[in-house]
Amino acid sequence: MKAKIKVTLKNGVLDPQGKAIEGALGSLGFAGVNSVRQGKFFEIDVAEIDKSKAHEAIKQMCEKLIANTVIENYDIELS
Amino acid sequence: MKAKIKVTLKNGVLDPQGKAIEGALGSLGFAGVNSVRQGKFFEIDVAEIDKSKAHEAIKQMCEKLIANTVIENYDIELS
Repeated sequence: MKAKIKVTLKNGVLDPQGKAIEGALGSLGFAGVNSVRQGKFFEIDVAEIDKSKAHEAIKQMCEKLIANTVIENYDIELS
Repeated sequence: MKAKIKVTLKNGVLDPQGKAIEGALGSLGFAGVNSVRQGKFFEIDVAEIDKSKAHEAIKQMCEKLIANTVIENYDIELS
């Protein structure tokens, strides 16, 4: 199964990279940009074909390696 | 409007970061991982409330700053 994982910073966590992009968009002439937040995106292809088992495995991967759960949230989408 | 943007490497473009994660997952004991690809994820909040105008503006931002269209694809989702 293929999993798409979005890892985003939790609310309240400073995002200097997002702020830099916001500033750069302003410099490029884009008006009306209220905020930019940057996160990470992963596509993982696992051999497991059972949806719930695959979800559990991906969740473990997120907790142990892919996301820093102190400051980040993750969202798993299986297909 | 809020836009969620996924930026992924095009097929055929080497992804050493994804390969490193794949190796690390193996070392952590996760079996059956076929492939890992890493991308980027952005949440942009724009003042524009017209959906098609917002989409056009976000598309311009992607082309000019957010994605390197030589090696990356981007996918815009408005809400």
